[in-house]
Amino acid sequence: MISNIDHIAIAVRNLESAVERFRALTGVDPDDIRIEEVPSENVRVAFIPVGNSKIELLEPLSDESPLSKFLEKRGDGLHHIALETDDLEAETRRAENNGIEPLSTPSTGAGNKKIVFFNPKETNRVLVEFVQKMQS
Amino acid sequence: MISNIDHIAIAVRNLESAVERFRALTGVDPDDIRIEEVPSENVRVAFIPVGNSKIELLEPLSDESPLSKFLEKRGDGLHHIALETDDLEAETRRAENNGIEPLSTPSTGAGNKKIVFFNPKETNRVLVEFVQKMQS
Repeated sequence: MISNIDHIAIAVRNLESAVERFRALTGVDPDDIRIEEVPSENVRVAFIPVGNSKIELLEPLSDESPLSKFLEKRGDGLHHIALETDDLEAETRRAENNGIEPLSTPSTGAGNKKIVFFNPKETNRVLVEFVQKMQS
Repeated sequence: MISNIDHIAIAVRNLESAVERFRALTGVDPDDIRIEEVPSENVRVAFIPVGNSKIELLEPLSDESPLSKFLEKRGDGLHHIALETDDLEAETRRAENNGIEPLSTPSTGAGNKKIVFFNPKETNRVLVEFVQKMQS
């Protein structure tokens, strides 16, 4: 089942400046904010913890990435939402059987997590990711 | 403090069709999805529970509402995020002192909740709401 909002992802042009804004907004301790480069996804990410969820600020590492193209077209703003499950393959199959098309087969993302994205055309132009945390 | 993502709000032109899509995506039992008219905010809302959070689908009740204007300009899609706190006034003051401008003074919204929105110009064009659930 879908058990939690894992994160809300926000596309930003300048990660350091965005971290400052969201720190000012949330009051999160700077020591609790982690910044990571994820070359496989062509992004730098700042993780801002909010309860059992996170706000993820995403800055593109390259001008050619889909995230750069999003920023060129739309500017900074909400990019996608990620829902947590303990059985990504079963939930993906269930959604697909209900007509929600995955954009690829599940893959292993940053932090040893299984992830899959769905076609935003099926969900009112909202890009949705399913995430399963794996035992490390 | 900010303790939880209370909800993610999605603007939609057709609430019933959007509920179908997000039910297909999440597998949430139809009996757990609540639809409510909120005349004070000029919207109809469907609440889709996800763990301790919700996905809220928002349909405008009038062509003149800010939500209608959003839909005209941007189409269906992510509209705002709401963060939960147990002391809305203190958190709003803290954010304001950090340069994040509230769009109004805190008010009482649907379901006897205190809410306040912040100027999205201060937070990378993301519209953010703080929410405090009150004892009923």
